[in-house]
Amino acid sequence: MPIDPNSPIEVTAFDWVPPFARGQVRDLRVRWALEEAGLSYRTRLISARERPDWYFKEQPFGQVPYYRDGAVEMFECAAIALHIAEKSEVLLPRTEPDRSRALTWLLAAMNSIDPYVMNQITCDVFAQGQEWATLRKPSQTEMLERRLGQLADALGDRDWFAGVFSVADILMVCTLRTLRNTSADIPQTLLDYVARGEARPAFKAALAAQFADFLPDPEGVPA
Amino acid sequence: MPIDPNSPIEVTAFDWVPPFARGQVRDLRVRWALEEAGLSYRTRLISARERPDWYFKEQPFGQVPYYRDGAVEMFECAAIALHIAEKSEVLLPRTEPDRSRALTWLLAAMNSIDPYVMNQITCDVFAQGQEWATLRKPSQTEMLERRLGQLADALGDRDWFAGVFSVADILMVCTLRTLRNTSADIPQTLLDYVARGEARPAFKAALAAQFADFLPDPEGVPA
Repeated sequence: MPIDPNSPIEVTAFDWVPPFARGQVRDLRVRWALEEAGLSYRTRLISARERPDWYFKEQPFGQVPYYRDGAVEMFECAAIALHIAEKSEVLLPRTEPDRSRALTWLLAAMNSIDPYVMNQITCDVFAQGQEWATLRKPSQTEMLERRLGQLADALGDRDWFAGVFSVADILMVCTLRTLRNTSADIPQTLLDYVARGEARPAFKAALAAQFADFLPDPEGVPA
Repeated sequence: MPIDPNSPIEVTAFDWVPPFARGQVRDLRVRWALEEAGLSYRTRLISARERPDWYFKEQPFGQVPYYRDGAVEMFECAAIALHIAEKSEVLLPRTEPDRSRALTWLLAAMNSIDPYVMNQITCDVFAQGQEWATLRKPSQTEMLERRLGQLADALGDRDWFAGVFSVADILMVCTLRTLRNTSADIPQTLLDYVARGEARPAFKAALAAQFADFLPDPEGVPA
């Protein structure tokens, strides 16, 4: 439904990634926010294997998503999600202290949790077998698991980090679910939290839309 | 001037850190935002060496800054800075596309630059001498320096990332200036940019206020 070739909102995504990365690329977060807000969008697909030179003029690091809506052009999934959230009370409470709580947890996802998650994925997946990664992994895993324990304590028995569901949960759920590709031990509180996020119809629609945009795997494999 | 014991805004900071970390602790970013916005604040100081148990109820990871203003209680320096920015046009443009550009670069500082910077500091300072850090350092430094080159290209000949000075620059300048403690090669474009940030009166006032809150070093050294 929110996919509409005539929508003024354009999201740039990859046309192919390896199977293990499908459902993890960060345009998912923006698609999810748009689905929650009921805003339609079209996609523009680029190659992840041969990122076109012109794309670095738009996104300096060559990453996705890139977002365009008239004169508004953005990157950084959390910035885009926050921009979308400002259009929809579903994603960002309008009153304090709920609004500032959502901002806190959005940034916590991106700066206090995601860097630990990415370092874990580096040790477990991208740098697997490299000597430094093997040596580093025990202390890295210990740091991550300590932080996940603190995060679980902070969530407690609430369903969502800002009390009500908000844009912060889109970023936090998507960050935590990438840990499935790692050896980290995830507290049950956080597994249940991720499952709550993944059960939302908007999440499911966003995930299906990301998968639908990928070329079939054999065709997408580099020659 | 913005320090005022009767201010409704309270910023929690550390009462002592080692000399190399002075001027780098993240409450600096919030102090700077408050100085730019002309908002007074008071400080509450806690020990970095023996973080009180009760503090983890407020800040789940035991870090500073923590921010309180009536019913609003926040952590994550970038979230607090953004919250302050919403009170002041000096820090966040009110119109598009400037506003979304500031959001983009704020998140770029915290999620696309800071994690690379922190990994560099880990290799160069915190884990210095550990075998994994020695093995990792060349590829880590190469990744960081490639990203800094892309960042310098993105800034080009502008003074500030969103065109006008904004909250994004507070986060980006503070992230980049921590690289002074590392061996990374920083493009001249970014060195000039950091110098522009550090030349702002509000930055200087914030830095002086952070230093003024530390116990003298000998008294602060753990027994």
